[in-house]
Amino acid sequence: MEGLRQRLVDFAAARRWEPFHTPKNLAAALSVESGELLEIFQWLTPEQAAAVMSEPERAHRVRDEVADVLAYLVQFCTVVGVDPLEALAAKIERNELRFPVPDGSAAGGGDGEGGPDVNRDVGDQSV
Amino acid sequence: MEGLRQRLVDFAAARRWEPFHTPKNLAAALSVESGELLEIFQWLTPEQAAAVMSEPERAHRVRDEVADVLAYLVQFCTVVGVDPLEALAAKIERNELRFPVPDGSAAGGGDGEGGPDVNRDVGDQSV
Amino acid sequence: MEGLRQRLVDFAAARRWEPFHTPKNLAAALSVESGELLEIFQWLTPEQAAAVMSEPERAHRVRDEVADVLAYLVQFCTVVGVDPLEALAAKIERNELRFPVPDGSAAGGGDGEGGPDVNRDVGDQSV
Amino acid sequence: MEGLRQRLVDFAAARRWEPFHTPKNLAAALSVESGELLEIFQWLTPEQAAAVMSEPERAHRVRDEVADVLAYLVQFCTVVGVDPLEALAAKIERNELRFPVPDGSAAGGGDGEGGPDVNRDVGDQSV
Repeated sequence: MEGLRQRLVDFAAARRWEPFHTPKNLAAALSVESGELLEIFQWLTPEQAAAVMSEPERAHRVRDEVADVLAYLVQFCTVVGVDPLEALAAKIERNELRFPVPDGSAAGGGDGEGGPDVNRDVGDQSV
Repeated sequence: MEGLRQRLVDFAAARRWEPFHTPKNLAAALSVESGELLEIFQWLTPEQAAAVMSEPERAHRVRDEVADVLAYLVQFCTVVGVDPLEALAAKIERNELRFPVPDGSAAGGGDGEGGPDVNRDVGDQSV
Repeated sequence: MEGLRQRLVDFAAARRWEPFHTPKNLAAALSVESGELLEIFQWLTPEQAAAVMSEPERAHRVRDEVADVLAYLVQFCTVVGVDPLEALAAKIERNELRFPVPDGSAAGGGDGEGGPDVNRDVGDQSV
Repeated sequence: MEGLRQRLVDFAAARRWEPFHTPKNLAAALSVESGELLEIFQWLTPEQAAAVMSEPERAHRVRDEVADVLAYLVQFCTVVGVDPLEALAAKIERNELRFPVPDGSAAGGGDGEGGPDVNRDVGDQSV
């Protein structure tokens, strides 16, 4: 990860792109690229989506968009001084307290709606 | 990274959330969380955005949303079988060929518009 | 539409929010709100999603997010001087030429993948 | 608006695209297209963004993406049975109560951070 981070820093520096890499611009770019990843799936049935990597052109697009999302996330973290792995570790710990493992047997909390997620925000009422 | 990936897998398994973690749902969730990161910045001036981490509540939100984005990206990659670091390394190599370092001195190619990016798609005409 | 547009203009002016309503900020806000609409659906099964309006709290959220998306779209169009209805009419006309009605009988063009859309971009290879 | 809505309905029906037009898919598509609109602005300076419509190619892209966003919003509203203009009118009324006009003179509430918005959610702490 650190090696890739440094290559991204060097890449932008060599092309004099740092002035464009503000936190706000990088957050926008991250959101745009996440949308491009979602675009691959938007009209697919669950079956088609599950088989996305068996179709070579789609598989290439998936890898490409994953790379873009990760690149912008890493670049964003660099400019704001956040360690993304540390942030994720801290969040997982908080969520292990917030979402205790159910000792019952029904999936998704047994309410028939279920659903994640480790990322679920307190204010999220959708699940 | 691998340790965190495994913790996310275990976390979802313990809560029986795997059925919700389809590629399409995770791509949607990644896009939603990227939007939440962008939301922090949407009304900020460039100066406020640059100082985002010096304001404790905003700094916490930034770390929290970074963690969410990375969590969903890692979970997405797990279900489709993509190694995100490998995908990023491959993309950086392609982009080093596509965007050769200018030997001139003007930033952004000297056209006054400039701009990145390592992630720039061939079809992207915005920059 | 024009009446609502004028109310949004007056609303922002009365609160002195115009300086924040730059095209870039409003495009970001529109994207953020679209993400919030998607968030309602991200973990829902197709059946739950189809019944979204029969659950009062979700129905309220849907209406609320639709209003937010439309508000920002209208405000964006106001600041850049675009008539959204005119833009849509022009696009429908272009698309009626680009996507002729198939005279065969197979859905989605008969390729078993099918899929829209009126909005499909030339470069979109996902469908 | 109603005329355009009907044309979109007919357009999808003639191409047998209705099965793809589920609420979840259309919410995803709306989010993707909003990202494409944002993409136009992501690397632009405030000055470039303000002048976006004076550059013909960008102006065309803006109109095109506005049309896409509106098309998917209208199609989403059709399948869930929401009247977007009615939803917006109701929201403006709620917001006129929630955000009373300041009788002082400082922009944005006088806190130096200011900022909108008519769409601001109760839980939004970013502004």
